Parts: sequence; structure tokens; C-alpha cells
Amino acid sequence: MHVSQRSAVPAFEVMRILDRIAELRGQGRDVVSLCAGEPSGGAPAAVHARAQQIHADRADLGYTPALGVHPLREAIAGHYRRWYDLEVDPGQVAITTGSSGAFLLSFLAAFDVGDRVALARPGYPAYRNILGALGCEVVEIDCGPAERFQPTPAALDAVQADGPLAGLVIASPANPTGTMVSRSELTALSDWCRTHGVRLVSDEIYHGITYPDDPSVPDARGVCAWQAEADGGDAEPSAVVVSSFSKYWGMTGWRLGWALVPGDLRGAVDALAGNVALCPPAPAQAASVAAFSEESYAEADARVAEFAATRALLLDQLDRLGWGTVAPADGAFYLYADLADKLGDYPDAAAWAAALLEGEGVALVPGIDFDGAHGGTYVRLSLAAGRDAVAEAIERIVRFQTRQ
Amino acid sequence: MHVSQRSAVPAFEVMRILDRIAELRGQGRDVVSLCAGEPSGGAPAAVHARAQQIHADRADLGYTPALGVHPLREAIAGHYRRWYDLEVDPGQVAITTGSSGAFLLSFLAAFDVGDRVALARPGYPAYRNILGALGCEVVEIDCGPAERFQPTPAALDAVQADGPLAGLVIASPANPTGTMVSRSELTALSDWCRTHGVRLVSDEIYHGITYPDDPSVPDARGVCAWQAEADGGDAEPSAVVVSSFSKYWGMTGWRLGWALVPGDLRGAVDALAGNVALCPPAPAQAASVAAFSEESYAEADARVAEFAATRALLLDQLDRLGWGTVAPADGAFYLYADLADKLGDYPDAAAWAAALLEGEGVALVPGIDFDGAHGGTYVRLSLAAGRDAVAEAIERIVRFQTRQ
Repeated sequence: MHVSQRSAVPAFEVMRILDRIAELRGQGRDVVSLCAGEPSGGAPAAVHARAQQIHADRADLGYTPALGVHPLREAIAGHYRRWYDLEVDPGQVAITTGSSGAFLLSFLAAFDVGDRVALARPGYPAYRNILGALGCEVVEIDCGPAERFQPTPAALDAVQADGPLAGLVIASPANPTGTMVSRSELTALSDWCRTHGVRLVSDEIYHGITYPDDPSVPDARGVCAWQAEADGGDAEPSAVVVSSFSKYWGMTGWRLGWALVPGDLRGAVDALAGNVALCPPAPAQAASVAAFSEESYAEADARVAEFAATRALLLDQLDRLGWGTVAPADGAFYLYADLADKLGDYPDAAAWAAALLEGEGVALVPGIDFDGAHGGTYVRLSLAAGRDAVAEAIERIVRFQTRQ
Repeated sequence: MHVSQRSAVPAFEVMRILDRIAELRGQGRDVVSLCAGEPSGGAPAAVHARAQQIHADRADLGYTPALGVHPLREAIAGHYRRWYDLEVDPGQVAITTGSSGAFLLSFLAAFDVGDRVALARPGYPAYRNILGALGCEVVEIDCGPAERFQPTPAALDAVQADGPLAGLVIASPANPTGTMVSRSELTALSDWCRTHGVRLVSDEIYHGITYPDDPSVPDARGVCAWQAEADGGDAEPSAVVVSSFSKYWGMTGWRLGWALVPGDLRGAVDALAGNVALCPPAPAQAASVAAFSEESYAEADARVAEFAATRALLLDQLDRLGWGTVAPADGAFYLYADLADKLGDYPDAAAWAAALLEGEGVALVPGIDFDGAHGGTYVRLSLAAGRDAVAEAIERIVRFQTRQ
């Protein structure tokens, strides 16, 4: 029987690697996996404690409003006040089923079938795959080292010449590169979108995992506060900001995220959410108010400090690895590097990574998963496994490269 | 800035009613609401206990596989063995974020933009609204008392004449009517779909909430076991079955459902799930294995027994209410009734329901939310509020009708 054309989502190399890791570990091999896009350790203690209490009380966790419960929407508004000195109306906050739910709803609300939506290549593949499944035309913009792996107004002008864009998705810090958009770059992108009537969707799920002690890293506040400042003044904000409990608070499996929704999309997002999702998970909503306690912030910040130490160790050892272009690892917990000069007899980084896994038991994600055009010689390394794992992986990679 | 055309989802009358209930209660009025599409009382004790333990252990609830954890997929297969003596391969079970997630993924996997998908009118409005948001053409089939409010092969022939269908969505028990499809009706529908290459999607979220002691009610097993029997033998099943923890187990807010996915859609559903949702909520998945304990089944069955008693009371009093056509309330916890002869000076059931709410403090959902063409004189009454609430509501409605 008929299977839809839109479900023809490309398979990810990482799935094959994860399967192979499981096999190798099943055989007793010691594998260091630097594949994960999630921190280990899980939710803050206070969130677990709140959840434990909810279930001890046998709370009747029925449907909530489609955009989430008011106390959590207020707590998120408070979070913007705390981090960015930004006034956010709780009514502007839509709680969603992970950031995935926020992307789905905002893409549905903002873009029709056939609309052209631009995004950076390399980038998180789900943007492209969700937009494609919804019938939008995905316009990938090649973003290399010269543009710090982020789109520019000049690149947007070029794709706009092929037909008007309806939207632009940006991410800062980005996956897989970790690079951030500086305040001036962001202002330029936001102005370009405004001028051309293009809806900007800003993925900010890695906010909080940034390294401000490193002077080369852009100011995260500038990035987030665009909605109030670059976009602000008299003008009504028009961009969608997407964020999540998954990364900074380590709550990936809880499936809880949010969007800051501009006024003109709010009714649409509300109506769509009620039909497409009914509501975000109620137990997670009730427990996650505790993510905004002092104790939870301290716990999450301690994890970020550990990422910072791991990142410093890795950046220190880059010379030993001898990799070529490395994207500025401004934030998140990724390093995206070009191995073109290190591939030796391997035809691409996927083959190189497969051999590394077999030979030395280190797993990385090939860049082809993030960039179908130019990712063939790249890998993504995740710091999320922690300092010891990264230090051990570096030794093994150096050994692997020496043997070639 | 541009808002998508597909986000123009019609507003529900029930939202206005829910707002008004909150206002009236805020003024101290005693309102009996028979609007809810969810049972009260919440999850079984064993599910809460399991969840409590998970959080006490501070389990690291990271991403799970996109289609859910294996123990839960196995437990659901066991559930089909228990209830219907049916062998289901756990690999066929896709755990989803509520049945909403199951509909979204199966519609995406089975239907392309522009595909024509048929469904019953009256029906659950989210089918129509999700399909419309995904760019499908929704073909509503008028299903009245003569067809027991369910589609028939003859009706499908008629709409097929206007252009080939890609899919058919059925629900048994249905919302808002509660009517079920008998085994022979289902076999005829399934055969029709097979002959015409039309994908059948069967909403079975109200399974378990049926009233087999009433001899007029169709055999629920026949309805569910179609995949093995009507569809079975040598042929590979081609239909999608959607179900949920929300109704029988009373876990609406947990957002956990599942689909039985035929082999030809499995790869597509897996790939789409990984992009659109990442995975269903991990805490709910871990806790819900306990829904299949003897204790949890007993608890859920006790709630169904309470629904049965409430239903008996309501059916007993129907003569006093004097309503016209009432859909066969075979299952679920709804009564869908035509008030055409009782509207008096009110132009439609929505106006009648608004006056009932103001005058007597009883809230029902107007049929227009479920049937934009012929629902204007209907209301949906939910039994989920329990016996006392329904008994009190009947007295007030009789009083209201007497005063007209």
C-alpha cells in the first residue's frame, strides 16, 4: 500500500554507529562514545523531588491548557528576567512537548505547503526533515569557516534571488558546530528578515551552555535579548524563540520545551497545539517549576563548569590531534572538525570513524549527518560524556592516527 | 508578517463554555460540567508508585528509542494477548506521545500533501484539523442514525467517485457518539479499503470502556482483532491501529499512546518519530509498564463499572429528557443526542446549551464542534463526571426544559 513520499527521511549514519557500539559493548569491548547529544546525570534533584511528591500524592494529572500551565509559563518568564534582564509576558510563552514540539507548531503556524524556508548547512537535521515532512521547500545555505558556520545577509540575498523566502531558522549555539551568532550578526539577520517579511525562528536550546570566560565567545545575552532589543522598540516582535529543559537542565527524556511566540502567531499556535498535541506532558510541567530554584540553577551551572573544563582540555589537545578546520566551539558541548588532511586511505570521515570505532573503540558522529553537501570530511565530537572520557578518547584517536 | 493558511483551525464552542464555567465557578455558582473528554481520578496507583520510585532513584531519564522502550512495547503486546487473544509483535508497537502523536506520525507516513482522506462526520475534530494542517484534503462523510453514525462501503463508494481516496479514519467506540462498528461492518470496511488501496487508520483509544453486559453492544474483540483476522491470513496487515493510556487507564495528561504499525509503514514511522518527536516522554514510559499489572487492570475496570452504572442511569432517564435521536452509546463515556424538538426559541443547540449553563449551571458540548454540517441541533453529554453529577444534571435539564 501507499507510503508517503514525505516520509522518505534520510537515514542517519549515527544510527548505524549506535547499533555497532551496542554490539561491541555486548562483546565486552570498552567503547568511549562521544556521540551523545545529551548531557548525562539527568534532571536537577529538586525537579525529581517535586515529581516524586506529585506521584506520592497521586495527583490527578489530566489535560492541561494546550500551551501549558500558568505557573510554569510564569516561571519561564522569570527565567528570562534572571538571565537576560528581559521582560517576557507569560502569555507569550508556549510550553511544548520538547523543542521538537515547538518547532513543529511554529513551522505549522508560520509556513504553508510550498513555502521556502532557509537554514544553515551544516545544521540539526530535524529542522530540514520536519519542514520537508510538512511540505515546505528547504533552502540549505552553505555556511563554512569563513562565515563562522552561520548564515549571513549576503547569503540570504543570494537565495532570495531564486525565489522569496518565507522563513529562516537559525541556531545559536548551533548543533553540530557549537558556534554562536554575535549580537551584531544577529541584529543584521533580524533586520534582513524584517525588511524582507521573512519569519525568523531562533533555536536557543543550548543557552546556558556557553563559555563566557573565553574572550573569543560572543555575548549570549545579546543573542537572546534580540527579541526585546534588535526587534523591539515600537515594533511588535515577529520572531519565534525556541528553548528547552533538555540541555542546560539535562532533561532530554522528559520532553519539555517552550517557545516565545510573537503576537501574530499566538492564536494559531494555541489552536494547532490543541489539535496536534492536546497539551505538553502534565507530570513534567508540574515538576519543572522546580528547575528554576536556586538549587537547580546551581546544579546545572556545575554541569556547565564541567563542560567548560572538558572543552578546555580538548582545545588544549587540538594541536596533537592535528585536525584542520575546527568550528568555533562557542557553546553547547560539541566540536565540529574537518579531517580532510587526516583521512589517509579512507574515502570519507564516515569510513574513518567506522575504522576508529573498530580499531580503538571511540565513537564520533560523521559530519554527513549534518551536512549532505560538504560534511563528508567532518566529524562531530560531543563533550557531554565528560572529562575522563574525552581525555581517553584523545589518546586513542592520536594512536589511531599515528598508526595510519 | 505571514501566518500560515493551514493554521486557520476553527475555534471550538467548548472553549467558550469552559471559560464561562470558570467564570461562573469564580462567582460561587455550582456548575455541573458534563463536558470533559477525560475520566477523573487519574492513573492507577501502581503507575504512580512506579513513577514515584523512578524519581526517588533520580533515574537518568534520557532520550529513549524513537518508538519507545522495549519493555513497554512488550507489555502492550501482552495486553493484546490478554484482552483479545491476539499475537502482536512488539516490533509492531510504536509508543507515541499520546494518541495525538500516533495520528500525526501515521498521517505523515501514509498520506502526502493533497491526498484525500475520509472520515465520519460527526467525529473527533482533531483528525480533520491535523490532516488539514498537513495539507491533506479531508473528505467528511455524513454519518447519521441510519448508519449508526459510522461510515459504510456505500458511502465510501460515493466519495470515491469524486476522486480516489488515500485513507479512511474510523473510530470505535467513537467520539462524540460512543457508537461502535460491529465485526461484520468492520470487515466490510476493511475489505473495501483493501480492494481500493486505501489506508485504514483505526482509532481504538476507547477500547476497554465498553458495555458488553448490554446485549445491543457489538463485540469489542471483533473490532480490535480485525488486524489479525479480517486483515490476516496470508495478507500482510495494512491498517494502523491507534490506542492510548489516556482513557481506560485515566492517564490523559501523561501524553502516552501507541500505534500498531503495519510493516510497510514501520520504517517511515520510525524515521519520522526521530525527527518530529525524538521520543515519547521517558518517565511516563518507565512508569506505565505498571499499567499492565493485575492491580491496575482491576482499578481501571472498577472505573468502567462506574461508567456502566452512570450510563444505565442516563439511559433509564432518556424518556424524561424527551430528546429525539440518540446515538447508540455502545462504548466510551458519551451520549450524543439530537435536541431538534426541544430547542424551542433557541436557534441551535449552542444557544440552548449556553442558556442551560446560565439558567441551571449544567454544561454540555454543542454538536457543532463535531459536525459542522448537521451538528447544530445536537449536544454531547459526557458521563465521565460520575453518577451523582449526571443524576443532578438530569434533574436540572428536565427543569430547564419544563420552564421553556
